Amino acid sequence: MYIEVDNELLRPQLAGERFSVVYRIAGTETAALAVARDICIEQTIEFPPECVPEGAIRDFIFGRIEKMERYRESGKENEEPENYNKIIEQCLKDSSESYLVEISYALEICAAEFTQLLNVIFGNISIKPGIRVEKILLSPSLLGLFRGPRYGRAGLRQILEVLQRPLLFSALKPMGLSARELARLAYQFALGGIDIIKDDHGLSDQKFAPFAERVKLCSEAVHRANQETGRKTIYVPNVTAPGRFILSRAQLAKEYGAGGLLIAPGLVGLDNMKELAEEDSIALPIFSHPAFQGSYVLGDAGISHYALYGQLMRMAGADAVIYPNFGGRFSFNQAECRQIVEGTTAEMGHLKPIFPTPGGGISIKAIPALAEFYGSEVIFLMGGGLFTSGEDLAANCRHFREVVEKTFSSLDQI
Amino acid sequence: MYIEVDNELLRPQLAGERFSVVYRIAGTETAALAVARDICIEQTIEFPPECVPEGAIRDFIFGRIEKMERYRESGKENEEPENYNKIIEQCLKDSSESYLVEISYALEICAAEFTQLLNVIFGNISIKPGIRVEKILLSPSLLGLFRGPRYGRAGLRQILEVLQRPLLFSALKPMGLSARELARLAYQFALGGIDIIKDDHGLSDQKFAPFAERVKLCSEAVHRANQETGRKTIYVPNVTAPGRFILSRAQLAKEYGAGGLLIAPGLVGLDNMKELAEEDSIALPIFSHPAFQGSYVLGDAGISHYALYGQLMRMAGADAVIYPNFGGRFSFNQAECRQIVEGTTAEMGHLKPIFPTPGGGISIKAIPALAEFYGSEVIFLMGGGLFTSGEDLAANCRHFREVVEKTFSSLDQI
Repeated sequence: MYIEVDNELLRPQLAGERFSVVYRIAGTETAALAVARDICIEQTIEFPPECVPEGAIRDFIFGRIEKMERYRESGKENEEPENYNKIIEQCLKDSSESYLVEISYALEICAAEFTQLLNVIFGNISIKPGIRVEKILLSPSLLGLFRGPRYGRAGLRQILEVLQRPLLFSALKPMGLSARELARLAYQFALGGIDIIKDDHGLSDQKFAPFAERVKLCSEAVHRANQETGRKTIYVPNVTAPGRFILSRAQLAKEYGAGGLLIAPGLVGLDNMKELAEEDSIALPIFSHPAFQGSYVLGDAGISHYALYGQLMRMAGADAVIYPNFGGRFSFNQAECRQIVEGTTAEMGHLKPIFPTPGGGISIKAIPALAEFYGSEVIFLMGGGLFTSGEDLAANCRHFREVVEKTFSSLDQI
Repeated sequence: MYIEVDNELLRPQLAGERFSVVYRIAGTETAALAVARDICIEQTIEFPPECVPEGAIRDFIFGRIEKMERYRESGKENEEPENYNKIIEQCLKDSSESYLVEISYALEICAAEFTQLLNVIFGNISIKPGIRVEKILLSPSLLGLFRGPRYGRAGLRQILEVLQRPLLFSALKPMGLSARELARLAYQFALGGIDIIKDDHGLSDQKFAPFAERVKLCSEAVHRANQETGRKTIYVPNVTAPGRFILSRAQLAKEYGAGGLLIAPGLVGLDNMKELAEEDSIALPIFSHPAFQGSYVLGDAGISHYALYGQLMRMAGADAVIYPNFGGRFSFNQAECRQIVEGTTAEMGHLKPIFPTPGGGISIKAIPALAEFYGSEVIFLMGGGLFTSGEDLAANCRHFREVVEKTFSSLDQI
């Protein structure tokens, strides 16, 4: 064996904490186990394992299969075949057979970097079919690398002074309006009682509504409305941009009085969102947008809704995660939205629970059903829907708010 | 209509250049057309179109369907049904029916930003099934936003002084080796005639091989070997890292004498790679790694191999694009690899052709077949494979090189 490993040096660096990832692997039990073994190598040494001498690399750097169990889709618990032959028969026929496999990794291989952690979780195997990241199980020191959401659910409620009902969220659009016209809409939204008003995520720094002018006018408009209503509505500009502009735009937004920031981590990179969220000189609530990220959740491979929109967004510092609701213009179903809700609040050490923020086709008539599904710990993002019901935008917003207030006060009485 | 649009202001900003994206949309003709119309709205105004008054937004900001044609998988040209009834029958039965639709967008909506361009191309619709970005058709001014590959194929050949045969590439691994041991391997690779020696993409700044020490020792080792051999082998460290570290690590690598940089745009964001590539104070060749990016190409939705590994990597400044070869540890097939090759060289204005760099299980015995498939304009990335054939690493490299030289000189003679 011609690779020389300094086991004395290596062992103490690796023998400590491990963290785990739960993968769902498609295939029969034998196939899934083979894939799991491959993941242990592919995500770490990416090297012929037979060429690695006995010692610390083999003992600690190789991923380690901790658990493996048959995966069941929720609601299918009772469909277990009666006997082993039936199981075999089903396995051979059923291409949807899959297994949950927990694989642990030595903390040190992540080098205390979010980018390298993402690489260990799903770097090379993102290119292999049939593997899905279901859940990330962070260890204490790994959690310590993440500040997490600065405000989370409770903090955002305090800022907005809305303690019980769902929060109301809308977006400034369509693209093509001038900064002045967008500010006029923002004023109407705020007058009508919307809690959070964001730029449409396609507004960046176009000539027809340049970032600086837009953010100045919209911030002023929302402050003016707040003075009239006594409310605490915030304006949330979009700072999705090339890396060198993100912090400077965020700083400018803060100076102009913006109350939060919108960013799409699929476009800028998850770590850039994390850096923005952790920047103490900014310290505004972060709203993550799902653009350019859908490929991770569509299909059977990729990353689960729970891990992507719940866990990873919290690690990257979002206080609210925007995603397309079931029944709207997009394809997520109820089970997937439920997964997201669970991911936003699941136990993750000091990482605060964040707001699930369904959008993409929310309508006022769907509010009672949504209330039942989400309860009150949710932000409803309604964009275009507020424009279709009548010519007075502020009145449409008031109606939205009244329906939400009424629905949730009647829920309280039950 | 209560949205006020300043058409006089808007029209001159929008009426100029448009660029296009060719999408492949799954479904019958009627369904695909409906999806195409939806894309025109979803990727631009994301707003009820009926609420938009006549004028510049409608005329220029709405995406515009330029062309629509039936998609045929290559090799299926002769399977066209004989008559229209047969087509209808097939459409109803065949869920694999799909259409190529070219949609154009006004240049100005991209705000001269790569992130916003990516958002227009595939932001929200990444979350809708059945839509694949097949090809990006850049307009002249949009091309002007991109410096593109600094070296490309010809420039890299000049640096390495290898003008005809395929370039030989290997990786320092397994993770867990010390910087000193990795440098010893680098020296052996260089002695054996490998042209480009990179860090394994999982090496970032782990305690067992810290970035600065590793880059210093490996650069020195390769320079020492070059002095003995007279060759121009380069060492390419991995600078995939949180955004705030990328440029500083690249600077350090340059100071230590590294000859190129490895970066995984899926982990850091495509725009961060572009910023690195365009930084004149660095000016080293860029090798892109496909980690955490596979979800875009697996399945029928997402982004085509051609657009992702060919076009987008060139826009983001890669001089060589690493991807998993057919027949190796990953699932890409020959047609997909062919698409990548075409994307690396397809006409894109001043954006230079770059090297397709297949890896992920290349073996010496596959070289003749690979030679036939790729010709000589390719970089062969062989990592673990160089370790499995014998105890003398330099001898294994020499053998790899001899097989390539022999294969290509015999091809020259034909």
